[in-house]
Amino acid sequence: MLIGYKLQLLALRYDNSAKVHLLKDSTVSEQFKEILDDIQTNLFEAAKSRQEACIRIVTSWDEYVEQVNKKKKVIGWWRKKVVRKETRLGISHGKDEDFGKWYSEEFFDKEIEEMEVEKCMFPLFVTSAVLQKEKTHVAGFEPEVAWVTKAGKSDLDVDLAIRPTSETVIYPYFSKWIRNHHDLPMKVNQWCNVVRWEFSNPMPFIRSREFYWQEGHTAFATKEEADAEVLEILELYRQIYEEFLAVPVIKGKKSELEKFAGALYTCSIESFIPNTGRGIQGATSHCLGQNFSAKEFFDITFQNEKEKKDSVWQNSWAYSTRTIGVMVMVHGDDKGLVLPPKVASQQVIVIPVPYRDANTQEIFDACAVTVKTLRKAGIRANVDKRDYHTPGWKYSYWEMKGVPLRIEIGPKDLTNNQVRAVRPKQRRDACIQIARTWDEFVEALGQKKLILAPWCDEEEVEKDVKERTKGDTGAAKTLCTPFDQPEMHEGTKCFASGKLAKKWSYWGRSY
Amino acid sequence: MLIGYKLQLLALRYDNSAKVHLLKDSTVSEQFKEILDDIQTNLFEAAKSRQEACIRIVTSWDEYVEQVNKKKKVIGWWRKKVVRKETRLGISHGKDEDFGKWYSEEFFDKEIEEMEVEKCMFPLFVTSAVLQKEKTHVAGFEPEVAWVTKAGKSDLDVDLAIRPTSETVIYPYFSKWIRNHHDLPMKVNQWCNVVRWEFSNPMPFIRSREFYWQEGHTAFATKEEADAEVLEILELYRQIYEEFLAVPVIKGKKSELEKFAGALYTCSIESFIPNTGRGIQGATSHCLGQNFSAKEFFDITFQNEKEKKDSVWQNSWAYSTRTIGVMVMVHGDDKGLVLPPKVASQQVIVIPVPYRDANTQEIFDACAVTVKTLRKAGIRANVDKRDYHTPGWKYSYWEMKGVPLRIEIGPKDLTNNQVRAVRPKQRRDACIQIARTWDEFVEALGQKKLILAPWCDEEEVEKDVKERTKGDTGAAKTLCTPFDQPEMHEGTKCFASGKLAKKWSYWGRSY
Repeated sequence: MLIGYKLQLLALRYDNSAKVHLLKDSTVSEQFKEILDDIQTNLFEAAKSRQEACIRIVTSWDEYVEQVNKKKKVIGWWRKKVVRKETRLGISHGKDEDFGKWYSEEFFDKEIEEMEVEKCMFPLFVTSAVLQKEKTHVAGFEPEVAWVTKAGKSDLDVDLAIRPTSETVIYPYFSKWIRNHHDLPMKVNQWCNVVRWEFSNPMPFIRSREFYWQEGHTAFATKEEADAEVLEILELYRQIYEEFLAVPVIKGKKSELEKFAGALYTCSIESFIPNTGRGIQGATSHCLGQNFSAKEFFDITFQNEKEKKDSVWQNSWAYSTRTIGVMVMVHGDDKGLVLPPKVASQQVIVIPVPYRDANTQEIFDACAVTVKTLRKAGIRANVDKRDYHTPGWKYSYWEMKGVPLRIEIGPKDLTNNQVRAVRPKQRRDACIQIARTWDEFVEALGQKKLILAPWCDEEEVEKDVKERTKGDTGAAKTLCTPFDQPEMHEGTKCFASGKLAKKWSYWGRSY
Repeated sequence: MLIGYKLQLLALRYDNSAKVHLLKDSTVSEQFKEILDDIQTNLFEAAKSRQEACIRIVTSWDEYVEQVNKKKKVIGWWRKKVVRKETRLGISHGKDEDFGKWYSEEFFDKEIEEMEVEKCMFPLFVTSAVLQKEKTHVAGFEPEVAWVTKAGKSDLDVDLAIRPTSETVIYPYFSKWIRNHHDLPMKVNQWCNVVRWEFSNPMPFIRSREFYWQEGHTAFATKEEADAEVLEILELYRQIYEEFLAVPVIKGKKSELEKFAGALYTCSIESFIPNTGRGIQGATSHCLGQNFSAKEFFDITFQNEKEKKDSVWQNSWAYSTRTIGVMVMVHGDDKGLVLPPKVASQQVIVIPVPYRDANTQEIFDACAVTVKTLRKAGIRANVDKRDYHTPGWKYSYWEMKGVPLRIEIGPKDLTNNQVRAVRPKQRRDACIQIARTWDEFVEALGQKKLILAPWCDEEEVEKDVKERTKGDTGAAKTLCTPFDQPEMHEGTKCFASGKLAKKWSYWGRSY
């Protein structure tokens, strides 16, 4: 039994299809759980190796064109299958790709509850006067704020902004609630919709005018506590991407130019979409320092232990429905969605394969028992009972929907007391490239790679790179400086300025 | 032990304070759980008996004035403690009165998941053209729609409405998704914010311009299925009010005049706020019939089992943060909030009562052990460790916050191996009144009663009652016709028209 099971696992890893025992007891269900875990791990490893492996060498023009065309097809799928559901407002929604409990309840909400973050809800609207309290912050958001100016047939006395983010909505309350060091730390989180009126091309889940996110806002007595929380939250975001969505990410710090408007510093996790050759910011964790809490802005002060007045140290951190877009683009391909088992609302689809002479009812019964057994083991399984579609049609249908595992049951299977387990195959190319010189950098950028390069850490150089790479597909910029720094040999030069390099940073075109 | 425990329970029921054993083991914790259950039940029974009991007879002018003044004080508290936190936008939020998991996750979401309702999220905005598709519906909402007309510095080409409810947002998708009877029933639910620009006085949680709610939208092949679901959902709403919030409600059907704009019929649960003498709609469950699905509106059709085209039958149903407002107003009084144990985020507060000669550390340790023991039993308990407030100050503080049970531990308690359990006392007056004639009706209305009266069921009479009772405090209207009808003797006349009565209905001023 054990050897048989190991063979099945191996078969599913390499051949994508295997015969396994008919599911009637929990032992076999447990095996399926392990197979699903295996799929989850493989999906992550595959995505990771694509990022870590080196560039594919093409030796002829034809091969190059073929490669490029392959990529275009993939983008083609994404546009066709997802964008057609987009509304003119830039938010998309498909009934089948539901959020799933994992999105907030199963992991993140529990984790932050442990950290004693309280669930809150704050208003959608903010007046212009409050929005403009912190100048750097408002400058970053004002161009994309949506304004309510009318109610019914009447014009409003004061126009109201729809929150693009809630710092300015929440901090007036912090100012009232926080008096004494005993009131600290104060930690709140809300799940809500925000609106940013993007004028560039909106893209569902990646860059949409309305999006749904979690935003946490915290206040501390000391910088040390704030610093520690920034990293603690960043680690949760890494886990969401890597452990749930099977998307490998890089943790790091944003450059001064790319940090959040009004922040002291911004940490982020960054991912990379191989087929479009663009980096993407996955989630951010900001330390706002004492900027918003300053007396002239939101005046969030407390009496410290020495009975002196002090401003609080603040953080804010967020991840959004963009997680879903990144997952779709990293794993999906020409054939449709590929969902990691941990987040798939349907983990196993069971398909009856009737044959004209066979006892159809018996096959349907076997399917029902299989589903029941799998569900008992906590596996999200279902049977496709529709009698007006062929099994072949159903295979394609569920493959397009990204269900990680398919079980087929036909008359022969019944005779042999077995089922056929099938796992859709996926393949992708590698995409991280190290560039040490400007020429290498430009070449890698042309090949749509994610670029790791030594940098002198000067903002002027960063701006210059943006300027020099401007074009139809957008300028290249720093994505982040990874915490996990490769060794830098003495005398290493900046790829762009030729000055002495100070750090390795990731660069690329970005969403 | 058992007798001692029963005595404690009795003591807490009648005297509001009792000495109980120091909590060190789970047996005693289990007793506390029962005490909390008892508080929950009593709170409901008290509210219920207030509704069911008859009018209080006052024999002198002084007594009358005293009664009225008492009520005014209560309203005074509500305004002072809650309204001062209200923003100018009409939504209020206090950090301590958090929503709690019960609000969606613990009960309702699980129940509707059983009913195979899917979690969804739809956009915030809807264009004027789509909003106006169904004329009756838009007429009901258009005067209170908030409009986005600008983004950044630019005017929008088309003004966008912020959803006042999402029928018009969701049904275009239903039209695309539903093709065949196999696609039915289709059931979705979203938790979201909606905006209705009330021009009359907003009141936090009761009538606010932005509010957070759950809205379910379902489509069926037959009227029978839709009818059954309307009642199934209504029963869930009753459970939320009665079993979680300890607020007694009446299930019934709205009159044609008061039904939802665009509905075939509306069922609702109604409650009554004794101290303001107003009825309040607690939640609604609408059958929309085939109105929205008609070809000329949203065109939601399917091929039925006989391969003929048919329009779907639809329902929509919602409850909102108003539940919280109703709970606060029904149980709260001059001394502050009164929270039913099931929904209190803090069920037990433990307060150390140090005395100058006593060993303070020992008392704090006993408090910590007590909290730990209670928490182990699943009771939401906490200790107030603040050293800069007196025990007396803390008693008032937590009583105002509505914590159902307080435990005090002082040096004497330690010596006797006991703690003191205290339960804040609450009292309220009765408020349902039966009126058979116009004079009785007017008198009861003046006494701020909830009125049950025989009615001829004619819309003209209903409008006439509204007209005749118009005044500073608002006109009286039908609240609902209860499913649970009292016996009606032959020849009973309508209280307003004198014609033969057809049914008993609830009437009153309403929020």
